[in-house]
Amino acid sequence: EDGAARQAARDRNEQLTKPPGALGRLEDLAIWYGAWRGTGRPAITSPQVIVFAGNHGVAARGVSAFPPEVTMQMVANFEHGGAAVNQLSKVFGARMDVHALDLDRPTADFTASPAMDEAEVIAALRCGWEAVAAGTDLLVTGEMGIGNTTSAAAIAMALFGGAAGDWTGRGTGVDDAGLDIKTQVVAEGVARHAGVSGLEALRCLGGREIAAMAGAIARARVLRIPVILDGFICSAAAACLENAVPGALDHCVAGHVSAEPGHSKVLNKIGKDPLLALGMRLGEGSGAALAMGIIKGAVACHSGMATFAEAGVSEG
Amino acid sequence: EDGAARQAARDRNEQLTKPPGALGRLEDLAIWYGAWRGTGRPAITSPQVIVFAGNHGVAARGVSAFPPEVTMQMVANFEHGGAAVNQLSKVFGARMDVHALDLDRPTADFTASPAMDEAEVIAALRCGWEAVAAGTDLLVTGEMGIGNTTSAAAIAMALFGGAAGDWTGRGTGVDDAGLDIKTQVVAEGVARHAGVSGLEALRCLGGREIAAMAGAIARARVLRIPVILDGFICSAAAACLENAVPGALDHCVAGHVSAEPGHSKVLNKIGKDPLLALGMRLGEGSGAALAMGIIKGAVACHSGMATFAEAGVSEG
Repeated sequence: EDGAARQAARDRNEQLTKPPGALGRLEDLAIWYGAWRGTGRPAITSPQVIVFAGNHGVAARGVSAFPPEVTMQMVANFEHGGAAVNQLSKVFGARMDVHALDLDRPTADFTASPAMDEAEVIAALRCGWEAVAAGTDLLVTGEMGIGNTTSAAAIAMALFGGAAGDWTGRGTGVDDAGLDIKTQVVAEGVARHAGVSGLEALRCLGGREIAAMAGAIARARVLRIPVILDGFICSAAAACLENAVPGALDHCVAGHVSAEPGHSKVLNKIGKDPLLALGMRLGEGSGAALAMGIIKGAVACHSGMATFAEAGVSEG
Repeated sequence: EDGAARQAARDRNEQLTKPPGALGRLEDLAIWYGAWRGTGRPAITSPQVIVFAGNHGVAARGVSAFPPEVTMQMVANFEHGGAAVNQLSKVFGARMDVHALDLDRPTADFTASPAMDEAEVIAALRCGWEAVAAGTDLLVTGEMGIGNTTSAAAIAMALFGGAAGDWTGRGTGVDDAGLDIKTQVVAEGVARHAGVSGLEALRCLGGREIAAMAGAIARARVLRIPVILDGFICSAAAACLENAVPGALDHCVAGHVSAEPGHSKVLNKIGKDPLLALGMRLGEGSGAALAMGIIKGAVACHSGMATFAEAGVSEG
């Protein structure tokens, strides 16, 4: 971020026709956004939503309520404009891109071996890195991958400790028996790769779409593009970056807190206070896409409002 | 609301390409919206934001951090497009109207007499009633009026009991001495008009812009237009309707909970769970205007998503 731009945004905020602080968190968001964009009076004109899809070896263990072929079916749905995230992207004027990563070649079952080898995780990170458009000024990364809340739970447990049951939830809606299996798979995976952290946790316990989100978030940092984090899986991807390099998520806000019980705990660990809490648990980037409206509103107020002097309004 | 439309919306929701319930509160919002609009597959094309402005006799008691002339200055700011609510209306594609109600003739100081006589409160209700455009399909009512958090606190205390200090906050930012005066004024006003309820509370303790919001909310009910309630003052206006006719706010959702401490208590009393909690306390309809993005997103998902059958996606 840019200190001079931050100060310019702060100075502008103080002159706007409202009581000091009356826009609450919108004021902080606009100043944060301006600091990353390098201007005291920013605009959002080119938001981008990227959905990455991958398949998971652990899906064969029965950790999901849906069969693995749904990943590919949902990619087709994204491409035809029929998913929730398509509608939300349209409402908030965002470009939407979909990247399916080797769907016919699931990652390895992480209870038996690392999910990916080094070449595979690098290819996935690179897919994310290259997916960010240079002109983007607000980024949402989302995902689709049957089995990927299991991966996210394992990453969270590896990074932050605790028991498998602390991080494992029902995902798309497994029943009690499925939840028991899922919790067991998470525990086995973390035991199999004991002591991994940062990008090694991403490689051993993650998935291609999870690594791609991490790559896109890292690329956005280099391009000074503010990012809205989505739910549990996106936040687990981001947590690997933060774990590797503290401060790596300073250009990110949490779009929402999902109903998946591990999510609020991950947000707490990475120090992010969610903008929305609407009980969503769909993934796809949907919670973050909805939160684009909040960031757009914050920036529009900041950059579009008149100052006291311009409007001839008496200060208090 | 329309029971057949509600059922049609529920049926549609169950077929959409997502795990059951995965859009959380967005699903309930879309079904509620469709029920009021009389269709299982609604669209939002004509949202309207109306800002009403009025002046208050109690302002002379020193209850605000800003002088009363700011009401008129801010009306000019609204008309010139310079206020926060102008920017938010633009971001979410809403028409915005401003109605200034007799600004040169403040209401009476409610500690000495009723704020309005019957003709005055009826004129204000009627202004709100007539301000709602027939083609509107989503309504936000906002307000501007130096001194009006004092009025809202007095209404809330009259309707719901408790002590003046439970309902009185800093509004635009009064200091400790101002807060003491304000609390005293609220207590005096409610004592002066002991036992008032419903529309009589609106008349005796309210203001023209507060009554106009109530009129607009009532008109929206007749026209089956869903309403997003704004902050403390808007919610106090709405509470007078609910107090007069239980269920009168079934066509309303709470857009946000403001930082004004009485607001969450009023929302609790009228049974509304806010969509946003971002520490805003500006009024003008700003919190509700921001929440238009949530309703638009919910309805867009509901009506735009493919069904499992259309997309060829396997159900869980």
